[in-house]
Amino acid sequence: MKRLRGPLAPLSTIGILGGGQLGRMLAIAAAEMGMRCHIFCPEAGSPAFDVAARHTVAAYDDLEALTRFARDCDIVTYEFENVPAATAAHLAELKPVYPGTRALAVSQDRLEEKRFFTALGIEVAPWRPVTTPADLAGALAQIGPDTLLKTRRFGYDGKGQVRVSAGDDPQAAIARAGQGPFVLETVVPFEREISIIAARDAGGATCAYDPAENTHRDQILHTSIVPGDIEPAVAAAAKAIAARILEALDYVGVIGIEFFVVRGDGKARLLVNEFAPRVHNTGHWTQDACLVSQFQMHIRAIAGWPLGSPQRHSDCIMTNLIGDAVLEAGNWAARAETNVHLYGKSEVRAGRKMGHVTQLLRPAR
Amino acid sequence: MKRLRGPLAPLSTIGILGGGQLGRMLAIAAAEMGMRCHIFCPEAGSPAFDVAARHTVAAYDDLEALTRFARDCDIVTYEFENVPAATAAHLAELKPVYPGTRALAVSQDRLEEKRFFTALGIEVAPWRPVTTPADLAGALAQIGPDTLLKTRRFGYDGKGQVRVSAGDDPQAAIARAGQGPFVLETVVPFEREISIIAARDAGGATCAYDPAENTHRDQILHTSIVPGDIEPAVAAAAKAIAARILEALDYVGVIGIEFFVVRGDGKARLLVNEFAPRVHNTGHWTQDACLVSQFQMHIRAIAGWPLGSPQRHSDCIMTNLIGDAVLEAGNWAARAETNVHLYGKSEVRAGRKMGHVTQLLRPAR
Repeated sequence: MKRLRGPLAPLSTIGILGGGQLGRMLAIAAAEMGMRCHIFCPEAGSPAFDVAARHTVAAYDDLEALTRFARDCDIVTYEFENVPAATAAHLAELKPVYPGTRALAVSQDRLEEKRFFTALGIEVAPWRPVTTPADLAGALAQIGPDTLLKTRRFGYDGKGQVRVSAGDDPQAAIARAGQGPFVLETVVPFEREISIIAARDAGGATCAYDPAENTHRDQILHTSIVPGDIEPAVAAAAKAIAARILEALDYVGVIGIEFFVVRGDGKARLLVNEFAPRVHNTGHWTQDACLVSQFQMHIRAIAGWPLGSPQRHSDCIMTNLIGDAVLEAGNWAARAETNVHLYGKSEVRAGRKMGHVTQLLRPAR
Repeated sequence: MKRLRGPLAPLSTIGILGGGQLGRMLAIAAAEMGMRCHIFCPEAGSPAFDVAARHTVAAYDDLEALTRFARDCDIVTYEFENVPAATAAHLAELKPVYPGTRALAVSQDRLEEKRFFTALGIEVAPWRPVTTPADLAGALAQIGPDTLLKTRRFGYDGKGQVRVSAGDDPQAAIARAGQGPFVLETVVPFEREISIIAARDAGGATCAYDPAENTHRDQILHTSIVPGDIEPAVAAAAKAIAARILEALDYVGVIGIEFFVVRGDGKARLLVNEFAPRVHNTGHWTQDACLVSQFQMHIRAIAGWPLGSPQRHSDCIMTNLIGDAVLEAGNWAARAETNVHLYGKSEVRAGRKMGHVTQLLRPAR
């Protein structure tokens, strides 16, 4: 795999696969550091195009367009984990691709991801691979009674998963869940959901922001609070797990890792839910509450700059503006402690991430 | 003059005259708020083009290009004060132009500016209008012995001004100073130079960041420190003067105002040096030490959003990277308390502003 040697020169071009809000905010961060971006995205009029020096509208399997794109770029990164393996492999032959094809392969497949965590000795909720109704019936008996049946691929924001309980018809459950194969997971009663944003550079140095406590509505992230109600030992454990994952993947860039905090015998411990090999919605607070945002941190890491400080200057809460909630942006902006971020999307749709708001609560403790 | 009624809709287009680093950082701020920018600049490859949805390369007196540009924009603003009056007038017939043609006219002409301050009762260094060598001789006798002869138009970063002392040959001094007419100013022994970044919205609401203490090298801004060694009464006076200037100009947007702090009878007082009707180099620290930067504040004001909070969360020092100093960017980035901003300029030239660095020193007091 190609790796960058030394820092990118000023005015280098960073290629970004994906033109949504994450690509847009990555492109802005790159521009703040004097670099140019080239966005590759199949959808015309993608939000990231407006802040990039160049863009290509083409399918992810258009190898000719990918070749032209790679030739124009010094390095390539991506804003989403479902980059097809063939796309990543093709680009990786031409230019360094960060965070890396291994991280993509693992995160694209929930079964691979479970195996990866388990091999590292990182605790996850009990799980079983499932392909057929008979598999499901057997697995449910072992790790039930309350489970989630998740497609191995292409799930996000609660899509591609259904609740399955003891007594449910396995065949019907599989039909509801969508495109198999699947992983069945035990629904673990958790105290809270937390996540961590961490980074690793090509030399192996790592850093991590403090974890956020997250709340969801309709299975979409609603708020991230930093610091959440998280014990110091739990926060330290989350950082240690992040460092192990980054190391095992020989990762370069920013990663987002989601955890469940569960309590047993009065003691809190962490189960990893999943990771995303990219900047993450639960890290948007870093734009306003840290000197170096997750977007700048990712660009620093992949461009061969020194990692910045993940230190937080202020405690904060980040609230997503989903669908119609964006109509409240003006009211949010009128509040003194608030900064409003909008993504430049032309159409408001239910469940669509339109922007987010950060409120600074107090100086960090 | 056209004025905007109510807030700009999302995905509105903001036209920016000028494609340098200020235009670039304005375009980034607009993008963070979901808007698009169209940059108008005569120089091909200008830094701001890389972060704008559209750009026009044309001369500022190309009325046809200006018309097309204005038709594509919802409002127009500028990154520099030397926008030709005819350009501003032409655009103002088509779309709202902020901060406004009056602010441009006053700030473009040092004589108009002195008269404006004097009419408002705002103290400035003693001054006289000068056209001929005889004028200069007379003025020097009145407000000398140490003076600066400044061209009325197109001066910046120490350009367009020469030192003239009693005994100097008036004719030779005028020849050295460049294109007249001129203003002669007394060189006032000052304690320090400070500046303030303030804003006003279309409804007349104003706000101001805390003043910065500035140091210069070779007549170009080197550092801005916030808070500087500035007495509370002096800071309050600077804010009050800013509010009067904004009101008198019926100003919409961000203004930068430079002051000398002078001491007489043991008491500090302020002389206004000049104002710039735009975001200002001495306000770059707001990007990293405030929730709402001067660039976002300007976009909020001109887009009809509520003004944000100018509160500072951290004390800081901003250092310009001028010319070769940009080669130290990597060393700066390796320091934990530091964020590095580069402007995407392809050529390093002596005296050229290539980027800046903000160091957070401590939580704001």
